[in-house]
Amino acid sequence: MTTATAVLARCAELDGISASPDHLERVHLTPEHAAANRLLAGWLTAAGLTPWTDAAGNQWGRREGSSPGLPALVLGSHLDTVPDAGSFDGMLGVVLAVAVAERLRGTDLPFALEVVGFSDEEGARFGKALLGSSAVAGTWDDAWWAQTDAAGVSLQRAFTDFGLDPDRVGDAARTPGELIGYLEAHIEQGPRLEAAGRSLGSVTAIAGARRFTLAVLGEARHAGGTPWERRRDALVGAAEVVVAVERVARAGGCIATVGRLEVRPGAVNVIPGRADLTLDLRAATDGQRDGTWAVLHAEIEGICRRRGLGLEVVETHRAAAVPCAPWLQAAVAAGIGATDDAGAAEPVELWSPAGHDAMALAAVTDVGMLFLRCTDGISHSPDEAVREVDVARGLDAFTAAVRHVAAVVAARA
Amino acid sequence: MTTATAVLARCAELDGISASPDHLERVHLTPEHAAANRLLAGWLTAAGLTPWTDAAGNQWGRREGSSPGLPALVLGSHLDTVPDAGSFDGMLGVVLAVAVAERLRGTDLPFALEVVGFSDEEGARFGKALLGSSAVAGTWDDAWWAQTDAAGVSLQRAFTDFGLDPDRVGDAARTPGELIGYLEAHIEQGPRLEAAGRSLGSVTAIAGARRFTLAVLGEARHAGGTPWERRRDALVGAAEVVVAVERVARAGGCIATVGRLEVRPGAVNVIPGRADLTLDLRAATDGQRDGTWAVLHAEIEGICRRRGLGLEVVETHRAAAVPCAPWLQAAVAAGIGATDDAGAAEPVELWSPAGHDAMALAAVTDVGMLFLRCTDGISHSPDEAVREVDVARGLDAFTAAVRHVAAVVAARA
Repeated sequence: MTTATAVLARCAELDGISASPDHLERVHLTPEHAAANRLLAGWLTAAGLTPWTDAAGNQWGRREGSSPGLPALVLGSHLDTVPDAGSFDGMLGVVLAVAVAERLRGTDLPFALEVVGFSDEEGARFGKALLGSSAVAGTWDDAWWAQTDAAGVSLQRAFTDFGLDPDRVGDAARTPGELIGYLEAHIEQGPRLEAAGRSLGSVTAIAGARRFTLAVLGEARHAGGTPWERRRDALVGAAEVVVAVERVARAGGCIATVGRLEVRPGAVNVIPGRADLTLDLRAATDGQRDGTWAVLHAEIEGICRRRGLGLEVVETHRAAAVPCAPWLQAAVAAGIGATDDAGAAEPVELWSPAGHDAMALAAVTDVGMLFLRCTDGISHSPDEAVREVDVARGLDAFTAAVRHVAAVVAARA
Repeated sequence: MTTATAVLARCAELDGISASPDHLERVHLTPEHAAANRLLAGWLTAAGLTPWTDAAGNQWGRREGSSPGLPALVLGSHLDTVPDAGSFDGMLGVVLAVAVAERLRGTDLPFALEVVGFSDEEGARFGKALLGSSAVAGTWDDAWWAQTDAAGVSLQRAFTDFGLDPDRVGDAARTPGELIGYLEAHIEQGPRLEAAGRSLGSVTAIAGARRFTLAVLGEARHAGGTPWERRRDALVGAAEVVVAVERVARAGGCIATVGRLEVRPGAVNVIPGRADLTLDLRAATDGQRDGTWAVLHAEIEGICRRRGLGLEVVETHRAAAVPCAPWLQAAVAAGIGATDDAGAAEPVELWSPAGHDAMALAAVTDVGMLFLRCTDGISHSPDEAVREVDVARGLDAFTAAVRHVAAVVAARA
């Protein structure tokens, strides 16, 4: 029977497929991507699944259920990484999915079992995230073809170079009738399970982020010669905005981050004439998020008005929050309950402020997610860490959750 | 007699000497620098002064007083510009000095009259300001030789390329015994004269700036996955610092500017782990400035302590405030009083938050400054503007101030 030790060994094996010997970097449509697909295909074959790579570069495997051609329950996550990544974001979910398939080998299931390693979730190469799972969900947007990487290579060109046909990306799309649902295991990427002293959590929803760019427009003037009453300092205005973002979002139960702030002209002796900043805003529900933005937007306008500053706000991204399907939440919770995670305590329920492939898949099928505790909430860093005991419980829970789904599907029939 | 019209025509002629046909840019030790020196030398010769270029690239002219070899009263300012400069910062003072020399041709003076166009005040090429006047003041620092421009050319190499001998820069230094004092006319680079409805002002002191770089150190983490209580967001801390700078400095009667702020890693979905900012702090007196910094520094430390952020503070520049010599302030005020600037009202006295060549010259001789009103306080911009009436009054006042100095010196003898 597949063990947590074996799961961790496979994660370490994937670590060896990197664009750099010094750190882990495996981005979309690169030789590393192809190598990771091949490694996964080998594991899938060994587990009795039939492997294939789809028209968007995602690596799949399928094992038929009690009769051929049944709709599939898909288990998976992504194989791509951010630059200088850790070993678990995405990969742990893929490797656990393979391990579940191994454990259930020989079990009669009322659905086909599929495992997928998505080609791109992070968006690290082309700036657009969820490319692999969006193709599968049938929500591909041809506008993405023109996106380029740091070397100026377009997504379209990269598809061709990888041996894929851009004109056939639609072939990767699945239909609702082919699918039972999608289950994904993932490290939490946050510290809540650790704080609760629990190994596992059942995800209730994946927050939809809204992202904005804000330009605060003042007047660049001589730092020495301009008295206070004549200043229209874009940076002081932007600084008040940053402080307000924290206060308003926190009060509204949202998560908000200003990750980028650029000041122009950016000289020690010139009053800033312009400040450009980004805002990333997330909440468990779209209503909470949008209500908080309305309050915050009004406050930002007030700051700029009081200071005689101009303001330009552009929304650059908006994704609706995706609730996990209640019956798959229940399956995940039942899976957790079948382990010794905190004994008889109720399974922890939590929402995911970060995006996941399940967000894209929700456009075509029901989704559910299992979170595993990670050390200190660290992710997108080589310091990502999981405990072996949590991986063991996660594998048990994931397997039990699939059995729970099987029982529900069998009862439906 | 030299007129304001002629003065403005000469400023326009200097405008034509630029590294770019699209904007005015004339920086240290370039062909444009040499061309401006030649143009000034021609004007000086025509005014009966003997021209020379000193060992630091400054352009001088001298006309003996009532007997040869007397100590000199030096009139001047700088010929270099920032990139995309206006026509008056520096140049107007040089051209006015020439015009004063023309007006006083044939007048018996108890000192030699010298005019200087300094080679570098802005520091736009090598990052170190006041290079020309520091050489004259004898305060040259050999550490400056290694400073490089944007193309990687060192100051030392640029000296050689310009035809100067770095080993002889000390020859540019003047001694106190050779000098009576230094008078400089300059646009105000601020809006106070305009607000007061006056053409001219007598400068009481030149503020000494202190400059700091501050690094606020937090922890870069996933923008979605990290809840508020686990964040150590360097940008939110830095934003509170920026807001505090304005509040504390304003209350302390200082001028303070955060001109640069850089955030790392600077990604829309990553909590900033580090923010680097600059602080430029000025006041009329060193005591006021230093007292304000003490309050501000304590407040910044408190912000970082409360937020669990690290703080690194490095002082990168400190110049003592330079008072104008009372007897030269009196001469400038007398000069203003000899014009029709606001009739019988007292001359406006004001301090200069911006640095000037006079700051450097104060190390070797007494200094005084005459400020001329400029439109909307704008400087370091092609929108710099002066009114012809103010230039006419400035020329009258500057000439009268030199006559006043002559009377004082004659009375001393």
